[in-house]
Amino acid sequence: MSTEGKTITCKAAVAWEAGKDLSIEDIEVAPPQAHEVRIQVYYTGVCHTDAYTLSGKDPEGAFPIVLGHEGAGIVESVGEGVTNVKKGDNVVALYTPECKECKFCKSGKTNLCGKIRATQGKGVMPDGTSRFKCKGKDLLHFMGTSTFSQYTVVADISVVAITDKAPMDRTCLLGCGITTGYGAAVITAGKGGVEKGSNVAVFGAGCVGLSVVQGAVRNGAGKIIVVDINNSKKAWADKFGATDFVNPNELGGQSVQEKLIEMTDGGCDYTFDCTGNVHVMRSALEACHKGWGESIVIGVAAAGQEISTRPFQLVTGRVWKGCAFGGVKGRSQMAGLVDDYMTGKLKVDEFITHRQSLDKINEAFHDMHAGDCIRCVVDMRA
Amino acid sequence: MSTEGKTITCKAAVAWEAGKDLSIEDIEVAPPQAHEVRIQVYYTGVCHTDAYTLSGKDPEGAFPIVLGHEGAGIVESVGEGVTNVKKGDNVVALYTPECKECKFCKSGKTNLCGKIRATQGKGVMPDGTSRFKCKGKDLLHFMGTSTFSQYTVVADISVVAITDKAPMDRTCLLGCGITTGYGAAVITAGKGGVEKGSNVAVFGAGCVGLSVVQGAVRNGAGKIIVVDINNSKKAWADKFGATDFVNPNELGGQSVQEKLIEMTDGGCDYTFDCTGNVHVMRSALEACHKGWGESIVIGVAAAGQEISTRPFQLVTGRVWKGCAFGGVKGRSQMAGLVDDYMTGKLKVDEFITHRQSLDKINEAFHDMHAGDCIRCVVDMRA
Repeated sequence: MSTEGKTITCKAAVAWEAGKDLSIEDIEVAPPQAHEVRIQVYYTGVCHTDAYTLSGKDPEGAFPIVLGHEGAGIVESVGEGVTNVKKGDNVVALYTPECKECKFCKSGKTNLCGKIRATQGKGVMPDGTSRFKCKGKDLLHFMGTSTFSQYTVVADISVVAITDKAPMDRTCLLGCGITTGYGAAVITAGKGGVEKGSNVAVFGAGCVGLSVVQGAVRNGAGKIIVVDINNSKKAWADKFGATDFVNPNELGGQSVQEKLIEMTDGGCDYTFDCTGNVHVMRSALEACHKGWGESIVIGVAAAGQEISTRPFQLVTGRVWKGCAFGGVKGRSQMAGLVDDYMTGKLKVDEFITHRQSLDKINEAFHDMHAGDCIRCVVDMRA
Repeated sequence: MSTEGKTITCKAAVAWEAGKDLSIEDIEVAPPQAHEVRIQVYYTGVCHTDAYTLSGKDPEGAFPIVLGHEGAGIVESVGEGVTNVKKGDNVVALYTPECKECKFCKSGKTNLCGKIRATQGKGVMPDGTSRFKCKGKDLLHFMGTSTFSQYTVVADISVVAITDKAPMDRTCLLGCGITTGYGAAVITAGKGGVEKGSNVAVFGAGCVGLSVVQGAVRNGAGKIIVVDINNSKKAWADKFGATDFVNPNELGGQSVQEKLIEMTDGGCDYTFDCTGNVHVMRSALEACHKGWGESIVIGVAAAGQEISTRPFQLVTGRVWKGCAFGGVKGRSQMAGLVDDYMTGKLKVDEFITHRQSLDKINEAFHDMHAGDCIRCVVDMRA
């Protein structure tokens, strides 16, 4: 029996309030309106951003809400006017949408689409309302995706169809961490990616940092130095192709920027912060080569925190920049990333250290905080 | 009688100690050694950097020293192995040298030459000694140029020959301020200069800031907004081709970044700090357009001061960079700037609001601190 045009009742992990575990509930998911898409979510990753909002530290976080933003699934139905995906398509949800029409999308200079930014930030669909209800209450949407529900509704510009040959328990991870790191290295850095032979340092060896390493390897970087305070990450760094590993706590008083400058004869051509720690961001900038070194901020800092440095660092030629979602335009470029995965150029399987079913999703949050976890994939149908 | 190979005794303005006026002295200038050039300085500008070091606030400032770094003159003699200039050449001294051989020069990414950086920073010639003596004491060199002496000795990589058709009382100013601002706009910004139609804001309407305006005009920028707390700078901004003027103190509580974002429908494509004030540097960054706006730090901040911002500014696509000497490679690119001046594309004459003779050089410092002064040129032969 077709569910098209009808409200669907399904399981979802609802965040009722900050600092509490998610609660598995039956929720009602309204049909997609014009330019909206209803997706049956098959798999979702659990990312630090979900945990950050759930913790209550995100000043823009509001409740109750359906979290989750690394999701893959199949289109259940589409609203009026949707042309980019159709029922049955395998899709990845995009928290960074791409309308191809706004000032940002047309600029050719950024992947940050402006079209639905205001409503997405408020946790509602572009018409200002929610498609989720539970116990008579509206639930908020999260990052335009809300993948912690068996069914979700997203704007058509927030979804991209990909080949049905790609396993969804892997492609869900292209919805955030992997793409963010890989894109930062192959799109955002320099004038279109890290150049061959350049020296790179990556601060933080989680999913994002290791994906930066992959991008650096792909572009033929010279030294690829992973910096992490957890020595167990050395094996991970090696596995993804890093050439060196530095633990800043084991430098006998030497600062990490001094160490990196020494290792690279003057400083790195590119450094990437994948920690969200503002002190690390400073080290990453200052480890750059005078004259041209670029530091790219990827990690999201806690609210109210600030980065700082002496302006001399910039006057002498270092560049401080950043990106969201790796600078990747989801609708235009996701197919290429899936290709890279399918042809073995982009590792994805290796990141999956943990798996859970929807009813154990709180375990996935606990897993994430364990040092041996890179990504936990949640099966939404189990 | 030729002075070649002999010590020359001439007048110079000596800075004996921090915080005191310069003292006009007879000094002895030794002949140039291998790869050195002795220049008869005809004209020198007086720049805020000279005043900063003289004030004693520069932690690297040492005394006694011959200050001055905006100088033009004629080569009196050259040492062994000098091939890039010869006796009689009209030249401009370069505090940013260009050896064309070091890692920096060969990188194609920066104008910061590394060859004599260490000795230049210590106030000595590349062999570690000084060419200046006064009352039996060695005097330090300043920024590899020391143009406050009627004769100076510089490394051959710190000097460029230019056409003798260009008047030296103008070309001296190409040795710092004008080139710094103009270069920042036409070389450092973006991927090789401000693009046609882009919106630009320039903080600080001195010699550097007005030269940024010139560069923006030359590259066909759209809005060119000058920001200065001194309303008398509005006429200057107009004269150099700015389209708008904003006094941050007259915004009725609105921040200057908010004002600029409003004026440019989302923020500036390029902003330039020409003030050296770290708070202004932050405003300049935050006035940039989300997704691609670039802020270029040109001004030199006081020792120990730091810039800061929320990393979110970078993650959402703004770029923070900087440059010294506008990113201009002195030996390769100065001739082009002189051409631009000779063909009317680059205003220089207009900057000269004050003139002094060497014996009145202290007046030039006082002039500089008056609001109506852009540049005071000192005639070293008078």
